[in-house]
Amino acid sequence: MALKFVSQENNMSDKKFPGSTSRRQFVAGLTATGGLIASGRGTPPPAAPTRVQGAAPTALGARSPYETLKRVPAYNVVSLTPLESLHGTITPADLHFERHHGGVPQIDPDHHELLIHGMVDKPLKFSLDELKRFPSVTRTCFIECSGNLNTRADEKSSPQMLCGLTSQSEWTGVALSTLLREVGVKSGASWFLAEGSDAAVLTRSIPLAKARDDALVVYAQNGEAIRPEQGYPMRLLLPGWEGNTNVKWLRRLELSDAPFMTREETSKYTDPLKDDTARMFSVVMDARSVITSPTFPQALHEGWQEIRGLAWSGRGRITSVDVSVDGGKNWQAAHLQGPVLAKAHTRFSLPWRWDGSPPKSAVALPTKQAMSSPPAGN
Amino acid sequence: MALKFVSQENNMSDKKFPGSTSRRQFVAGLTATGGLIASGRGTPPPAAPTRVQGAAPTALGARSPYETLKRVPAYNVVSLTPLESLHGTITPADLHFERHHGGVPQIDPDHHELLIHGMVDKPLKFSLDELKRFPSVTRTCFIECSGNLNTRADEKSSPQMLCGLTSQSEWTGVALSTLLREVGVKSGASWFLAEGSDAAVLTRSIPLAKARDDALVVYAQNGEAIRPEQGYPMRLLLPGWEGNTNVKWLRRLELSDAPFMTREETSKYTDPLKDDTARMFSVVMDARSVITSPTFPQALHEGWQEIRGLAWSGRGRITSVDVSVDGGKNWQAAHLQGPVLAKAHTRFSLPWRWDGSPPKSAVALPTKQAMSSPPAGN
Repeated sequence: MALKFVSQENNMSDKKFPGSTSRRQFVAGLTATGGLIASGRGTPPPAAPTRVQGAAPTALGARSPYETLKRVPAYNVVSLTPLESLHGTITPADLHFERHHGGVPQIDPDHHELLIHGMVDKPLKFSLDELKRFPSVTRTCFIECSGNLNTRADEKSSPQMLCGLTSQSEWTGVALSTLLREVGVKSGASWFLAEGSDAAVLTRSIPLAKARDDALVVYAQNGEAIRPEQGYPMRLLLPGWEGNTNVKWLRRLELSDAPFMTREETSKYTDPLKDDTARMFSVVMDARSVITSPTFPQALHEGWQEIRGLAWSGRGRITSVDVSVDGGKNWQAAHLQGPVLAKAHTRFSLPWRWDGSPPKSAVALPTKQAMSSPPAGN
Repeated sequence: MALKFVSQENNMSDKKFPGSTSRRQFVAGLTATGGLIASGRGTPPPAAPTRVQGAAPTALGARSPYETLKRVPAYNVVSLTPLESLHGTITPADLHFERHHGGVPQIDPDHHELLIHGMVDKPLKFSLDELKRFPSVTRTCFIECSGNLNTRADEKSSPQMLCGLTSQSEWTGVALSTLLREVGVKSGASWFLAEGSDAAVLTRSIPLAKARDDALVVYAQNGEAIRPEQGYPMRLLLPGWEGNTNVKWLRRLELSDAPFMTREETSKYTDPLKDDTARMFSVVMDARSVITSPTFPQALHEGWQEIRGLAWSGRGRITSVDVSVDGGKNWQAAHLQGPVLAKAHTRFSLPWRWDGSPPKSAVALPTKQAMSSPPAGN
């Protein structure tokens, strides 16, 4: 009987599978008695996938049970992207790093508005539906937490634990400059406050020049509505600027002629200097790179393999990355995967043959970056 | 007591929230008695999101309960992408359209190999780990089912129901030309067979020229491992070619000097002609476009809004799209969102002011496309 079943499968044609129910019942029988269906790595797979009718189409897909991608939550305020497990340049939305100051609020988009007021001709409130009627802009760029580099990391730290507070998405929304044309900016305005509707009511002061340059109010991420951890239903996107200035759950923009000196602009998000002063509003993320493969905890293969990593800069486009496999003595130019975008994670790679001798650290360095805009802030 | 709680929230600083447990218990109490936490559109939201401690970081994110994106499954062999609900150009992996011939097999990647044989110097099997050691290529392109255009659609069909059998992902894998250099192609080889390990053992004949042009064997989609419905752990990617030739769950490539005339190259996937013959291997997807907003079932707003849509061609880059809002009498050039990639969904847009008079059909037409390679097939 099993043989007859197999032969039916091989003759199955492109139709509505009139016998599919009984086939699935047959498979279910096998599962209950023999445990043929695998439920995770280590359990036996179906003896031959071609001899078992597969699952029907569904409303929403799910990952293979053999893939166990996870962010690592830490300190109850962050979770880190598993950079070493990802390919290409897009971070899946459910693996985008998190950094919250008051947790993730649950917001009903029908009860959420963005107020723009202060030094404007005509203060206005925008609902999500209204924002979506404005000309839209789509841009792929990284976001990185200003605290992204674990100084306690060692050679047994994965890229996720070393610098997993950065992720990349394709964002869609409205240019802030478009919204500012609607409200009319009063002469003399030079800063604006961005305020979130989380429990921390997070606020940051942003130079108005950034709004005129490339700031967006975004409502979509990787094609779909922004995820709750990323600011649903809308967030500020300041390409290349430190994560917390990209205010999530955005509810208010207030224009002024000076920075607002908010709670996040005191001991936090400023750089203490040796002379006991602090540098404020140093918000542009500098060039950085990380090798994502091979890295701990992967085992090294003898022979050819590809060294891979990501490089990025808040100042513009990455134009070259050099890689050293002898602890920094000699350097080779890596290949950059196109299209190379400004203020975006850029995938680099270099074929490498390991001869089996004790490996030295590999190091990658983005050696050149194109400046697409002058450093911002004061 | 509630007021005291609120005041604690507003003073909350950037720490580990020592009181977070009791805060959350407090919120849980509110939920149990008063139902303050919303669980979906239509239920009341939290009175003020800023006054409730939000959710802690998690290992995996989830959509907002207010977003109910879904593929529509049909005929037990397909499910359709909700194009009208998406923004930008990336399709979230769990919303990528499906078209199966024997259902979705569950495959243990440790027990899966790709065999390349036939007219080669040295037949070889490649495990997933081995494939990942080869130089990698990342490319964003669309996949479209050859049957994508519901001829029974009318003005009350959403874009999903009209042509939801197309989706776009950022794919990562190995150039097939790289793998062919490993096995060595014998002189005279001009076609190859691609075989999947699903219950249908789907097979297609592909001209070898496509392997030398831009064919990939891919293992990643939008940054992560390919989803099971899309061919986990590996699929063939033939940019611009009809969906079924992008064989999923790929297990075998056999080189030959002629096409294999498989089951899918008989009455299926051929074009019947008027003279009772059939055109075979017409596999390149032609230019197509769809307006995704405003469309049924959305209501039209009087005043300004943005007409949005997607245009694509299997032959190269979209270079211009014209839009008509008077049933085809007059046409205007739409804006194309960059970067515009070859064989990729391209987002177009046009601001439009509706004066409230009975609307005529809007029509979009990709008027120009750049040919990046000659038409393939025989």
